[in-house]
Amino acid sequence: MEQVSKWKQLWLSYEKKAENGNASYFQNVWIQGFSMEEPVVKSALKELTDGALGMLGAKVQTAGEGENAAKSSGIVLQRLEENNEAGVKAEGYVLKEEDGRLTVGATDEKGLLYGVFHLLRLISMEKSLAGVCKTCNPDNPLRMFNHWDNMDGSIERGYSGRSFFFADDDVIINERTRDYARLMASIGINGTVINNVNVKQAASWLITDRFFEKVAQMAEIFAEYGIKFFLSLNYASTIEIGGLDSADPLDERVIAWWKEKMKECFTKIPNLGGFLVKADSEGRPGPFTYGRTQADGANMLADAALPYGGIIIWRCFVYNCQQDWRDYKTDRARAGYDNFIKMDGDYHDNVILQIKNGPMDFQIREPISPLLGGLKKTNQMLEVQVAQEYTGHQIDVCYLIPMFKEVLDFHTYCKPGADTVADVISGRTMGNKNTGMAAVINTGNDANWTGNYLAAANLYGFGRLAFQTSLSAEEILDEWIPMSISTDAEVIKTVKGILLPSRATYEKYTSPLGIGWMVTPHVHYGCSVDGYEYDRWGTYHRADHLGIGVDRTDAGTGYVRQYYEPNASAYNSLESCPEELLLFFHHVPYTHVLKTGKTLIQHIYDSHFEGYEEAEGYAKAWEGLEGKVDEEVFANVKERFDRQLRNARDWRDQVNTYFYRKSGIPDEKGRTIY
Amino acid sequence: MEQVSKWKQLWLSYEKKAENGNASYFQNVWIQGFSMEEPVVKSALKELTDGALGMLGAKVQTAGEGENAAKSSGIVLQRLEENNEAGVKAEGYVLKEEDGRLTVGATDEKGLLYGVFHLLRLISMEKSLAGVCKTCNPDNPLRMFNHWDNMDGSIERGYSGRSFFFADDDVIINERTRDYARLMASIGINGTVINNVNVKQAASWLITDRFFEKVAQMAEIFAEYGIKFFLSLNYASTIEIGGLDSADPLDERVIAWWKEKMKECFTKIPNLGGFLVKADSEGRPGPFTYGRTQADGANMLADAALPYGGIIIWRCFVYNCQQDWRDYKTDRARAGYDNFIKMDGDYHDNVILQIKNGPMDFQIREPISPLLGGLKKTNQMLEVQVAQEYTGHQIDVCYLIPMFKEVLDFHTYCKPGADTVADVISGRTMGNKNTGMAAVINTGNDANWTGNYLAAANLYGFGRLAFQTSLSAEEILDEWIPMSISTDAEVIKTVKGILLPSRATYEKYTSPLGIGWMVTPHVHYGCSVDGYEYDRWGTYHRADHLGIGVDRTDAGTGYVRQYYEPNASAYNSLESCPEELLLFFHHVPYTHVLKTGKTLIQHIYDSHFEGYEEAEGYAKAWEGLEGKVDEEVFANVKERFDRQLRNARDWRDQVNTYFYRKSGIPDEKGRTIY
Repeated sequence: MEQVSKWKQLWLSYEKKAENGNASYFQNVWIQGFSMEEPVVKSALKELTDGALGMLGAKVQTAGEGENAAKSSGIVLQRLEENNEAGVKAEGYVLKEEDGRLTVGATDEKGLLYGVFHLLRLISMEKSLAGVCKTCNPDNPLRMFNHWDNMDGSIERGYSGRSFFFADDDVIINERTRDYARLMASIGINGTVINNVNVKQAASWLITDRFFEKVAQMAEIFAEYGIKFFLSLNYASTIEIGGLDSADPLDERVIAWWKEKMKECFTKIPNLGGFLVKADSEGRPGPFTYGRTQADGANMLADAALPYGGIIIWRCFVYNCQQDWRDYKTDRARAGYDNFIKMDGDYHDNVILQIKNGPMDFQIREPISPLLGGLKKTNQMLEVQVAQEYTGHQIDVCYLIPMFKEVLDFHTYCKPGADTVADVISGRTMGNKNTGMAAVINTGNDANWTGNYLAAANLYGFGRLAFQTSLSAEEILDEWIPMSISTDAEVIKTVKGILLPSRATYEKYTSPLGIGWMVTPHVHYGCSVDGYEYDRWGTYHRADHLGIGVDRTDAGTGYVRQYYEPNASAYNSLESCPEELLLFFHHVPYTHVLKTGKTLIQHIYDSHFEGYEEAEGYAKAWEGLEGKVDEEVFANVKERFDRQLRNARDWRDQVNTYFYRKSGIPDEKGRTIY
Repeated sequence: MEQVSKWKQLWLSYEKKAENGNASYFQNVWIQGFSMEEPVVKSALKELTDGALGMLGAKVQTAGEGENAAKSSGIVLQRLEENNEAGVKAEGYVLKEEDGRLTVGATDEKGLLYGVFHLLRLISMEKSLAGVCKTCNPDNPLRMFNHWDNMDGSIERGYSGRSFFFADDDVIINERTRDYARLMASIGINGTVINNVNVKQAASWLITDRFFEKVAQMAEIFAEYGIKFFLSLNYASTIEIGGLDSADPLDERVIAWWKEKMKECFTKIPNLGGFLVKADSEGRPGPFTYGRTQADGANMLADAALPYGGIIIWRCFVYNCQQDWRDYKTDRARAGYDNFIKMDGDYHDNVILQIKNGPMDFQIREPISPLLGGLKKTNQMLEVQVAQEYTGHQIDVCYLIPMFKEVLDFHTYCKPGADTVADVISGRTMGNKNTGMAAVINTGNDANWTGNYLAAANLYGFGRLAFQTSLSAEEILDEWIPMSISTDAEVIKTVKGILLPSRATYEKYTSPLGIGWMVTPHVHYGCSVDGYEYDRWGTYHRADHLGIGVDRTDAGTGYVRQYYEPNASAYNSLESCPEELLLFFHHVPYTHVLKTGKTLIQHIYDSHFEGYEEAEGYAKAWEGLEGKVDEEVFANVKERFDRQLRNARDWRDQVNTYFYRKSGIPDEKGRTIY
């Protein structure tokens, strides 16, 4: 598989836009308090120059540095004091237009860069800059991408081609490296992990002289855009590359080896932020192997990284993946909480626990992980999956921001007044600063980066949301569509009409009411109702001829008790349980009547017919855009819709047939079931 | 993956045996009418020499050639006239002891070799040769192995290691090549196809100068044991290696290319018997691509091979593998017959249609293919699968000869008095000579050739049965066990007690009553009741809450009408349909009462519990053989039984749970179902 030779610039394509009086600002660009030699400032100036030229045909005139800036018309890039009037904080910025003078104020270079991108965003959206007055501070200290790229160039759960970081067990550095960094910075991403959390073979050697030089070079490019560089670590490095016979976190030799290794890493990769670790999970080694706790493992690494300001991000995806389907007591949903809650408070300050949004694994619908906010004395990072592993493989359109919003807005009841997930991971709840959001991201070396052009809305949206969690799913589309597809109002309306409800649609034609998992094993695309039912993964629906669902109430696995009240009681009762999660928490008869007045079985039939019809509607709406959007974009998305419709039809028919055959209860409307 | 460096000789290990007065015959070995220089005769003499020395400690004294042979005591290897008193025919032999003179009489060298192996078999079984008097003629003209070996060394559906014919896209020739030929000849195999019927990549080039030399060298070794050498052919060779743009069998350029190619092949590989072809099947190219018939394709190749006495074996495994599970009318079982019956009589004399034993694909239970005997003017070869693709992967013990016997003994009613499958494929029904039996065989480069030592009983048994279809499954074990495991009566009894009923046991704990296919997709080991239910392969069970099975009666797909009467009517009626095939032919309610008085659902439960218990019994019986059989054999089989029990338990519990959940009908005996 070769590298794709040319690629798009997505929302940074800087194509000609309506001027709207915006060009005039660029005649004088002054800098005040920043050094034009500083790499991030340089990047900001370059974007400003390229963006103005491309979008407005305006040539930036750099007037100079210093005092005159304050008096000039044009653009002033201004460093603010920490305690500034506008309330701008670290990495934040103020954008303010007055009397032809447009100020981008920030306390640091990153804030300046983000402010410049905001300015360019407005131009790209064809908004007038006149009268703009906006202060933006990032809600989350850490806003990260996690790439599951392997060094052979493959991407675990990648649906957009091969890796642009690795090929043939080597590191790739080319123009795309910089374009990637620009795209990230433009949406506020300030950290990235470039290699798969399952660290194997050559990737174990990324922290050795075999790769230091290249890795440092890549990290340096990221630094120019304010992005910290992270690597996934092989927990068993002491054995696999260190020549020791142990990875016991309390073994002095292991500790000494890591101290030395961390010193080497942070010295040789100046822009290194730290490491991401998946331990004791799905066959990966970890501290459990040595009878130690997860905290033992994480703290040992964190202590070694501390002198260099490094952080250790420790994934909480630890569960028994050798479960017996005959066992109704063991509950995979419980595992994360059970494995991590006891050590709350034991983790050192530069450890962050990275917690998936749900207790299972990125299904189209799950409850919120009870670890989020359940942990009260531990740094937490929310992990979501933008790569559409279970949500359509970037074939089916599935705008995920509404789901992420639900997660962020969820009240955990961990602390009065600051109890949402957004509060917890922003640091507002506990006053901590090593917190944030990470996304398993959906990029690859496809020319359009994300396979389906529309999937770029998730890439863009995650970054924007991580920066500003109060943005709505619709507001994000109001930015992304005009920047990426078209500023034509009709087109914006149509694309929004497809994207905004698309997650609900995908949910309708796949697994019902929170049960999840009815996917083709391993592949995770396409329907297989019993695919995981008799397997070892702890992912069961327990459907029989009378009903379906997993009893996780007090009478069942007791999972509900991992939540604070009133959530625990709400989930525990069939009456008060949110219906979209009904089958996650309860085993329910097909004849159970839902709040809509429909029986459960009829809901299954109806929602699957509806889901398919909605997908058909989107495909048709897209057809109507022919000639109104870029030809290539049109063709790419159209081809994906063809495949989505086949997939949606298969899901509809298999799920309906499965439950009809099992229950014997016919569809009230007499539609075709096989 | 490396080649295994050393391997066993299986039943030809020629270890010390009880003498029983057999040694004395070897003091004088005379040859009459055969040339000691002829390669096959040389091989016979070498086996005689090695066998006598190994098993009896007797040194063979070759007395000479000519007239004195008739009067001598000892062994006389005698060429008989075509019309001989003993009734010996081509490739047959007579074995006769009288007054210390043991005659091995044959009309040709192959018969002589087979006679010698028979003699050695008796010694290995510790039978006395005194008074032996037996004439054996092969029932089937062609007795073949089909290897599905790929040139990269992998074996499609191989469960005994890698290929010993190919590695790294090259041909392997070593001592094992000869040992393989000896083993084959010792059980009467007279033809073999060394490469996979799915001919791809390097294998397409086997019929070019890139490989001719090596291939001819291997074929020559086979010739020394009377074995004709065959290759699988890429039907699209004209395109893939010939530089043409077509494989249309009526295209003059294609015809000319093949004429030239056949000339080259048969000239450069003197022992070449012909070719096996899989066309228009599972994605392989074929004459259908050009709107031609299967006969057009086969005849074109056959005509080109005719001048050299070559034959074309054409597989009938042609069906639509893009079926829609929603479609209840299309029936994969019908496909073979529908595709081939119309051209009956059109195939040239040197074409043989190779027909799988059942209409589907080597399931543990299928009806007999209606093409067998359905074709009345076409050469037919029966294809069975000794490789345990669907029958336990040579992990689970499954002695297949009882199944093959059922196939051979099946009355097709195609012709009064000569209507069994054995009649059809032996040539007795139609008086044709290009007929016989082929097995997709179970060998690999494991030291013991077949993975599980007990699976060698299938390897051995197929050869013996193909030679003499009247042998019973038990008689074959009475040969194989003493030759391969032990001559101890108790051991023989125990091993027979495991092997003879093992196929019935495997059937019990897997899919019930002829329905088949409840296997893990692609892998074909382990249970997945719905694994193929919503897929494109035409392999459905159609289970709902009331019943299960495929209606192939007049009211259903009409498949039953592909049989002659009275079979068609017998299958068509729920009352007269053999119950082991009930669900193959009928969709039956779970409450249907079987001849045993049990309901269908109770039968499913009972047979699955029984099957597992029987497997447990075998494992236990085998444990009792510790110290009584070779240590390595013991350990190998014991380890397989551990895995078989896990597999059988999974099957039992998944199938029972699936049908309990679906039907809601509890087990009468209240056993554990999940």
